[in-house]
This record gives sequence, C-alpha cells and structure tokens, in this order.
Amino acid sequence: MKKITLSEASKLLLNNDKFHILTHRYPDGDTLGCAFALCYALRGMGKKANVIISGNLPSKFTYLAKNYSEQDFSYEYVVSVDIAAPSLLGELQEEYENKIDLCLDHHGSNSMKAKNIFVDASCAAACEIIYVLIKEMRAKFTRDITNAIYTGISTDTGCFCYTNTTAQTHRIAADIISLGCDFTEINRINFETKTRAKIKMERMVYDTMEFYCGGKCAIIYTTLAMQKALCAGDDEMEGLASIPRQVEGVKIGITMREKEDGTFKVSVRTNDGINASDFCARFGGGGHVAASGCSIKGDLKTVKYMLIRAAEEVL
Amino acid sequence: MKKITLSEASKLLLNNDKFHILTHRYPDGDTLGCAFALCYALRGMGKKANVIISGNLPSKFTYLAKNYSEQDFSYEYVVSVDIAAPSLLGELQEEYENKIDLCLDHHGSNSMKAKNIFVDASCAAACEIIYVLIKEMRAKFTRDITNAIYTGISTDTGCFCYTNTTAQTHRIAADIISLGCDFTEINRINFETKTRAKIKMERMVYDTMEFYCGGKCAIIYTTLAMQKALCAGDDEMEGLASIPRQVEGVKIGITMREKEDGTFKVSVRTNDGINASDFCARFGGGGHVAASGCSIKGDLKTVKYMLIRAAEEVL
Repeated sequence: MKKITLSEASKLLLNNDKFHILTHRYPDGDTLGCAFALCYALRGMGKKANVIISGNLPSKFTYLAKNYSEQDFSYEYVVSVDIAAPSLLGELQEEYENKIDLCLDHHGSNSMKAKNIFVDASCAAACEIIYVLIKEMRAKFTRDITNAIYTGISTDTGCFCYTNTTAQTHRIAADIISLGCDFTEINRINFETKTRAKIKMERMVYDTMEFYCGGKCAIIYTTLAMQKALCAGDDEMEGLASIPRQVEGVKIGITMREKEDGTFKVSVRTNDGINASDFCARFGGGGHVAASGCSIKGDLKTVKYMLIRAAEEVL
Repeated sequence: MKKITLSEASKLLLNNDKFHILTHRYPDGDTLGCAFALCYALRGMGKKANVIISGNLPSKFTYLAKNYSEQDFSYEYVVSVDIAAPSLLGELQEEYENKIDLCLDHHGSNSMKAKNIFVDASCAAACEIIYVLIKEMRAKFTRDITNAIYTGISTDTGCFCYTNTTAQTHRIAADIISLGCDFTEINRINFETKTRAKIKMERMVYDTMEFYCGGKCAIIYTTLAMQKALCAGDDEMEGLASIPRQVEGVKIGITMREKEDGTFKVSVRTNDGINASDFCARFGGGGHVAASGCSIKGDLKTVKYMLIRAAEEVL
C-alpha cells in the first residue's frame, strides 16, 4: 500500500497494459463515468482495457457504452475507481479484492487494499480526478470521454447543486463543454426525465413521509411490496434519497429501502453541517459529510425506530 | 439608440453618477441579481445608485438586499437590466420608458428604447454580462456582488441544467465561487427547499395528470379550490410547469392554473424542438421555443379540451 501522486498514477498507467477497471456495486454515474472515461483514454493510447461493472449497467447509462465493446485479453493491471471499501466491490470482491494495483477515489474514508492509492477528498466527484489524470497522461479527449466525465461530475453534484460542488467542479465542466460534450442530452436523461413508474413511486414514497424531532428529521421508505406493485426497477428507486432533506426545516433526511436479503439500505442526507457519515457509522456505514449510507438488518418498524432514536440523539 | 460594446458600457458607467437601475416586472433571480450586483459595484466605487424594482422583491430573494438600503438623491442616469421590451417595465414604464440611458440584456428579441444598448444573446443569464462588465470597470467583487451574480446565472439555467448553459456560464460560476460566494446557501434556497404545502401541492397536481396523443402530451392543472385547500401562495405554485414535460415520452407538457379573473394561466413546455411559442400564439400568447405561456378564458373542461385539440394538431 503506497500513497502516490496523480502524476505517479499517470506514469503507472502509461507503463502498464491490459487493464481491468472496476466499478462499485449498484454502479452510479460517477463510478461508471470514471471507468468508461479511463477505459476510452487508455484504448486511445493503444492499450487494452475493459470496464468491469459490479452488477448491471443501469439502462439510463447505456449511452456511456455506445462505442464500447469488450476486448479479449487476460488482465495484467487492475484499477478501482470511486470505490471506498472492499465490500463495495460486491460480486467482484472475491476475484479482485487482493489484486488491485491502483485505487483512484474521492472518499476520505477510503479503506481499499491496493498497491497504489490516490485519494482526493476535495473532489466532488471521482471523475474530477480522472479528468486531471487523463490530461496528465496527455491522452486525447474524445466525445465519449467528455461525456463520461460530465456524467460523473453532474450526477455526483446533483447538476452542480449539492454542497460538494467547488470552483474546480465548474472549471472542469467548462473545459469539457468547450471540448465538445453532449451535456444537454446528458442533463435531460439524468435530471429532466422521469418514467411514469418513477412518478408513481415518488407519490407512494411521499405518502410514507413522517416527521420527528420537531420537524428536523424526515423519514421515508420503500418496501419490496411497493416496488413490486409498481414494477419499479433500480431506475425508479434512484434519487428518492434527496426527497426528505428538501423539506423546509429538515436537517436529517432518511430514506429506507427494503432489500431482498432482509436488510434495509439506508440513505442519510443532512443540512447545516450535521455529519451524515458519523450518523451512518453508528450502523457500520459511512460516506460523505452531507450524504452517507448504511445497511441495517431487521423489519421496517424496528429499523425505523433505530434510525429515529439515532436522529434524536444527534439533534 | 446606439449599439455599444461592453467596454463602452463600462466607460459610460464610470463617467456618470446617481444611477437608477431598473428590473423587469415579476422580478426573477436574473434581473434582481443584475440590479443588485451592479448597484453594489457602483456604490463600491463611490457612486450613488439605487435598485428600482418593478413590483415587489419576492421573499426568497430578500438575501440579495441584506446590505442594501435606499440612498437619497435625484437620479441622473438610468440603466435597465434583463428587460427585453418596454411593456415588461410594468409599473415603471410611465416614469422611465423614454429615459433609459443604458440597456443591458441577453434577450435576442430586445426591443427597448434606450440611448445605448448592449445585448448578448449568447449569455444564458444577463448576470453573465454584468460579471464581465464589473470586471471591465475594475470594481471590487464583494460577497454581495458574487451572491447576486450567482443568483442570476443559477436561476436562469435551472442550476446549470437547462440547454442555455454554456462553458462561459460554468467559467463565471467557478470564478465567483473562488472569489467567495455563498452558493451552497443560495442553491439551498432556490433549488433544495420545498415547503410542506408545496409538497402537498405537487402530490395533488400529480393526481390531475392525464396523457393524450399516445403519451406525447401530458396535462396537469390547479384550481382555486385546490390552492385554497392547501393555503398555497405563489411560492407553492412555482415550478409546477416543469412537471408534465419531465415524464418520459412527453413532447408537450401543459400546466393550467385557474386564476381569480375566470381565466386559466397556461404554461407550455416542449421537448424535441416542438415550438411552444407557436403553440401559445394560437391562444394569443408566446415566449421561448421550449417554454411559453398564454391565458385562456373558460371553465376547466372547455379550456382543457381546447389545449388537447391544439396538441393533437401539432403532434
């Protein structure tokens, strides 16, 4: 395990070949944006590289793979992007956990085992790191690369709205828009389009909203039964976590999502500097200051009670 | 009437004093952001300047006037910001229409009568023009100024999401964030906060949603009775117009809002290049290609039928 600079990471990539680039499970726009941008950049330099997705590519992100097809080779160098902890490798953990040569991430809590690690927690999105890295490598920025990077930085910042956005985030957006990127189409897909099932799911979720701690804590949930009733897939479930925090006066917004394995996936979003990562650490989770997550085993009532108790203690 | 450069506009401002800076009626974040930013900049250079608002300052924008109090002087130089046509001066039209010395705007259709005019339709927000102008004037960028400029560019672009956003928009955002601007608080006020009444109104509106033309037209409405039941004011009604167009497959999204005078205020939002302005022109209205409006007299059923018929003809 060696902490390296971005310039050293660039050299490692330039001096190696036959890459497997890993995403985290439940892949989002940032991990996928990183993986595809880096893959296209390496291929553009004549190297072999594949994106190895943990789980499935969500249908809304298929545009990232428009000009991608898997290459046939045995991998020699493994890169993880936007993956904060070994468990987040999901189905890839067994095969790759101890074989990661280079870990690139923006989570301050990063606990990956990797030969070389570069973490910059000041970046709103891991795609900001990949942008600087590709510049450092002097690879050519194709439209596919700019689209992938824009996807990561726009989705991880809620289209430049969340508190993690920085001057650098906007500067990179300006650069990749100048380089030619289909940002209007990407915005439309990620921020301006809802399926009818998603609208129905949002309405159902609003009906579950309850307030605690004098209105400072709002909590919503989805159950497997609700999801089944609406034939809702992962696309419909996305973005629900931002709903409770949006309510005026709410400082801790909690979203509980029932999973097949008897656990609830919990997303916590906070306002006014309340530490969501500390909140989730109580339940073995973590993440960012204003946006974190954890998994809790139990039935709806019990898990909800545990979360409300924790909110009461924090507030 | 003389078309001038931004450098000439800067000189005019530097060579004059005792300014009245006018906003358009129903003032939004951009016209207010322009007016306060320019006013603070001129005052910072030792000049006298007041912001003259057409109508009232909406409560959500009171933060713009935090360090503002009206100065006592007789005006000698009148500047209009973000005002596309004389009628949009509203209550200020009578007093100022023929006294405007400098018109600064980003509407290509600008039809103002003014001694000097600078229009740049490539700018997503008029605040982009004001930012460059203040740099040109070499005024000091205080926090109040950066907050005002950020307000204009973020609200006019839906937080950098709408198709009018450009690389320049992001570059200016990066600059003013670096200069120190409370963008997270401004985003929270304008994009991340919903009152409970607003959430209830959205749910009620979703219940009215109907689809026509094979799902390509979606229509929603609010009635006076609904508004009254929720004690919903203008803040709660804002943003509803974007709801129907967001649904997957919808090309024409129509929002009808019952008004006290027996008419419905109709907002039309379109996708895929369908001309919303042409659509609204059928009913005596107009606006932008993707976002327009009109007013129609009649009861709910009749007005809805008229709109659906028009949508069928267009699609």
